[in-house]
Amino acid sequence: MIYRYKIGNPIETGAVPAENASMFEDRDVIEKVSKKASESVLEKVSERVGEADSVIGIDPESGKVSYEMTPGDRVFGLGQAVRGINKRGWIYESFCSDEPHHEETKHSLYGAHNFIIVQRNESTHGSNAGSGRVHFGLFIDNPGKVTFDIGYSAVNELKITQKYPDSYIYYISGDSLKDIVHQFRTLIGRSYIPPKWAFGYGQSRWGYRSADDIREVVRRHREADIPLDMVYLDIDYMDDFRDFTINNESFPEFADFVQEMKDENIHLIPIIDAGVKVDEGYSVYEEGIRDEHFTSDKDGNPFVAAVWPGRSVFPDFMNSDARRWFGDKYSVLLDAGIDGFWNDMNEPALFYSPGRLEETIRKISEMSGKNIGIYDYFKFTDMVAGLQNSPEDYEGMYHRTDSGEVICHDRVHNIYGMKMTEAAADAFKRRGRENDILIFSRASYIGAHRYSGIWQGDNKSWWSHLRLNIAMTADLGMCGFLFTGADIGGFGNDVTEELLLRWLAFGIFTPLMRNHSALGTREQEAYRFENVEAFRHIIGLRYKLMPYIYKSYVDAAENNEMLFRPLCFDYEEDERTYDIEDQLMFGDSMMIAPVTEQNAAGRMVYLPEAMTLVRYGRDEAGEFLETREELAAGDHYIKVPVDEV
Amino acid sequence: MIYRYKIGNPIETGAVPAENASMFEDRDVIEKVSKKASESVLEKVSERVGEADSVIGIDPESGKVSYEMTPGDRVFGLGQAVRGINKRGWIYESFCSDEPHHEETKHSLYGAHNFIIVQRNESTHGSNAGSGRVHFGLFIDNPGKVTFDIGYSAVNELKITQKYPDSYIYYISGDSLKDIVHQFRTLIGRSYIPPKWAFGYGQSRWGYRSADDIREVVRRHREADIPLDMVYLDIDYMDDFRDFTINNESFPEFADFVQEMKDENIHLIPIIDAGVKVDEGYSVYEEGIRDEHFTSDKDGNPFVAAVWPGRSVFPDFMNSDARRWFGDKYSVLLDAGIDGFWNDMNEPALFYSPGRLEETIRKISEMSGKNIGIYDYFKFTDMVAGLQNSPEDYEGMYHRTDSGEVICHDRVHNIYGMKMTEAAADAFKRRGRENDILIFSRASYIGAHRYSGIWQGDNKSWWSHLRLNIAMTADLGMCGFLFTGADIGGFGNDVTEELLLRWLAFGIFTPLMRNHSALGTREQEAYRFENVEAFRHIIGLRYKLMPYIYKSYVDAAENNEMLFRPLCFDYEEDERTYDIEDQLMFGDSMMIAPVTEQNAAGRMVYLPEAMTLVRYGRDEAGEFLETREELAAGDHYIKVPVDEV
Repeated sequence: MIYRYKIGNPIETGAVPAENASMFEDRDVIEKVSKKASESVLEKVSERVGEADSVIGIDPESGKVSYEMTPGDRVFGLGQAVRGINKRGWIYESFCSDEPHHEETKHSLYGAHNFIIVQRNESTHGSNAGSGRVHFGLFIDNPGKVTFDIGYSAVNELKITQKYPDSYIYYISGDSLKDIVHQFRTLIGRSYIPPKWAFGYGQSRWGYRSADDIREVVRRHREADIPLDMVYLDIDYMDDFRDFTINNESFPEFADFVQEMKDENIHLIPIIDAGVKVDEGYSVYEEGIRDEHFTSDKDGNPFVAAVWPGRSVFPDFMNSDARRWFGDKYSVLLDAGIDGFWNDMNEPALFYSPGRLEETIRKISEMSGKNIGIYDYFKFTDMVAGLQNSPEDYEGMYHRTDSGEVICHDRVHNIYGMKMTEAAADAFKRRGRENDILIFSRASYIGAHRYSGIWQGDNKSWWSHLRLNIAMTADLGMCGFLFTGADIGGFGNDVTEELLLRWLAFGIFTPLMRNHSALGTREQEAYRFENVEAFRHIIGLRYKLMPYIYKSYVDAAENNEMLFRPLCFDYEEDERTYDIEDQLMFGDSMMIAPVTEQNAAGRMVYLPEAMTLVRYGRDEAGEFLETREELAAGDHYIKVPVDEV
Repeated sequence: MIYRYKIGNPIETGAVPAENASMFEDRDVIEKVSKKASESVLEKVSERVGEADSVIGIDPESGKVSYEMTPGDRVFGLGQAVRGINKRGWIYESFCSDEPHHEETKHSLYGAHNFIIVQRNESTHGSNAGSGRVHFGLFIDNPGKVTFDIGYSAVNELKITQKYPDSYIYYISGDSLKDIVHQFRTLIGRSYIPPKWAFGYGQSRWGYRSADDIREVVRRHREADIPLDMVYLDIDYMDDFRDFTINNESFPEFADFVQEMKDENIHLIPIIDAGVKVDEGYSVYEEGIRDEHFTSDKDGNPFVAAVWPGRSVFPDFMNSDARRWFGDKYSVLLDAGIDGFWNDMNEPALFYSPGRLEETIRKISEMSGKNIGIYDYFKFTDMVAGLQNSPEDYEGMYHRTDSGEVICHDRVHNIYGMKMTEAAADAFKRRGRENDILIFSRASYIGAHRYSGIWQGDNKSWWSHLRLNIAMTADLGMCGFLFTGADIGGFGNDVTEELLLRWLAFGIFTPLMRNHSALGTREQEAYRFENVEAFRHIIGLRYKLMPYIYKSYVDAAENNEMLFRPLCFDYEEDERTYDIEDQLMFGDSMMIAPVTEQNAAGRMVYLPEAMTLVRYGRDEAGEFLETREELAAGDHYIKVPVDEV
């Protein structure tokens, strides 16, 4: 059952489609946070299983949500977030952030996915607890910053606070984790299904500068007999980073080039940035200014901040006219034969605003000739580091809604990227092409899962980011994002051959399978390494398994189920599964167990029941083949050479 | 057997004491790197086991060392370095670095420990291999930068390059990993044994500002009944960060305060920084200038760069007069009753040099009023980030040796911190107090292990840094550093209660057991958390186990053995032990298996033979007690509640 609580005057985000209003029951907030949950709430659980207002406390003024956990409770969800699958023990801030350094002590990543599931452990809830399960889910539908303190400040306290309290809070009771996810996914609507070719292997790098660079990438994959379906175009295909333009010098006769690649069965996937270059004579800029399609500063002038093209303005995606206008611009590329896009920098990322940069330069200039004390020096370096994605800049940017209301960006920050992608998806629909165009985004909010995928942001070539990829892929599925994957091999820093092979061995299962890396890092196309045979074998397996992968994907989307599931979602009775975060159930009949440790010859695998080990590896003569072995339930040490899956 | 090769004109570092010259045989370099190892070298292995010149290639001009690994070879050592215990798959640069962000893709940490061990896997060395083991160790005794490419650029190539080739290369052949370590440790001399009280629990934080702050820390530990033997004094005890001064306002009557703490059985451990404030009227500065005890710039003037006190000069620790002078300064604190020190910032860390800062400010000033393109903006932010620990600054600093020779700092960079600590240790010896004063350092080089400990640098509150702590503790033992430990709970970023408990459960075994954190992070004294009983229990266990810990330590030091050993050092015949990097042998009769995953209820443990599981946990009534259980060899899932060891 789903209950909805209304706090203040919520902004409609579109996360829950209007037509799904019949799926939930509107409720008044009757519990207050100030009543201590342990006294007023938990005692009632056994009597009133599944009734939100007896389990959680909601403060009707602040929208603050409280729940007292017991040591055995576990918390899932939050989609794109740091740390493991069980989210206990940290503070997560939903605030779409351009955060390439996403170590475990960061709080925000690129997406904002305010859905959590609490798995109540009745054995630790004490004698008052009933025998039935009373798991529940919570979705905070609020486009501003939302903070989840899940047992960080106090080990057993779950606290959710909202910067701007106006919101809907959905409470979902259910008798299993899968049931709660299913209810939520039904509520938010069917997940995006991209064209089938989008499940192929794609190669990307910030650093491909010309059509010839792309041709070489394709040729070398073909020569090495490594399958390839897509090559991504990062920012350098554009003319001086202007959206919807082509650099005619490095990509001459672009439409012909797109066709040439199509003839090679390669889809080119260009990037589209949120920021539009300030540039008289550039039609997108001029039209947007003329028709007032950009966001404003506090004085009503276009809000300007620098991204790749330097000073830029930002389409007002909160406004349907602006969305329609921007979405129609994709035609420039569609008309050239392009059929896939990735929307980037749409948190939106801001390198600096000209005013704050000038102020910073002025303050630094004043330091000249002085003996700079150490604290002044730190102020100086902090000031420079703080230019990027400054909270003050987000608070100084304004939208105008369809009804003419002016809203500060900070209040709706988390849906900016989603609305950019909606603009594109709606435009494709108007052209009748909603089913054959690939689109995915960096920033996202729940709701975007209906018309796009997401990638998991600018990660690093770290083993810990492979593990994060595994966890996030499961977490994102809870929140509706099925078409997702990380930059395989890691975007930032230098990859090792072993890490790339191990990452691919997981990546062949992720719906979005893309190898992507940043300018200045080690080149990481599969053909650049010694063990090309292993790359060919592992990437080839993706295609061998495609029937299962694609069918599992479509089934999960159409039935509002998860494609990847933590083991405890399928084996809730088996406590041993609770801690296992490096194995995932995949589709109906597969469990995957990637190797995530450097220099490991194998790994321990826990089998909740008897299973068949399917190994794609070499026989003694060195030939690749599939072997099968029946294994009993329990713990097994499995050898996994680096060229095996 | 140990062979020594001389390349060019080595600088004597003191890593190998002169009296140990009889332990090795001097050899000429006969193999050249240009001869391909696979052809010229490996074939000979079976005939000439243990002879360096048949196994590795050394280029007599560049000092470049090459070895062709087979897939089964494993490489250990390097002391303080990123990544796991098996060092294959990365490039490590020995260059003492102030690197608090030590993620796995960094190359240098605080110490420079140029010793590696290659465990040759005969099964992958093919049919030419003999039946005996032919493991070997290599020590590159060179105080400049040394780079170890251990299968990063090419999966099976081990390449060691030296920025300044003048060096000694020691090759050690042996028939087991432990044997090689034992030979090396015998060569470099007995490890430091600190006073016994230094094995107690210590509390530290950058942020204790006064004697009253310290009193509160002690009082609250006592109230919570948590044992405590030491409180550390970070930079704020000094008068404006001047070495060998006391802030008389916040620490009035310092000697009385030291005595007051001694009466409470608390040792105060002040920090000593490498940089000396430029300050007319400050005697340490004035004396050092008068007697030319500081390093110089290229013009022969004192080299100046900013650290905590702002503009500072740097004692010339390459010069014995300067060392003696600086070492004697510790008397200021010894005379006040202090009996322990930590030497910090002695890589040396440089925040900025005044000239480069001024140049940077000037360049930034010129940007004023301009439309800053995005690449100019990145140049600007890179320029600011590059002010700290700049290679150009290290190349612009000069030492004068006892013979009057002027040496560029960059050539001897890696022994600067070691020589600072030697200055202190020699001074303690002159006072006849070498056995009752605790000293440890941040920067280090092999050799410093004879007269000091080291801590593992400015880590973070990351689970991955707990794992790094485990690996580094084993790696450092190979290189002689037995008295070591990490900042428990992590120095940077916010700790969680669970991470601190799990980290302590490992930390109670590390000889240096210190909880330390940085200004601005969550306060992490044990008494600040909810489960005080668990902290009391776990820290208390340190004291319960002290007889075993101390005896094991002294035995390891006196016998030149490792205190912590990877499992494969004790069970070389058991291939399953090769990958296990989260369990360590500790002393003669203990194996420890810490939990290093968030939210884990337990962990898998591999037993190479039947063992007794000793569990320090709670019984059903909640009382702490020791229980024992016999376990068979093999894999076991062990439940480990967060308050258990």
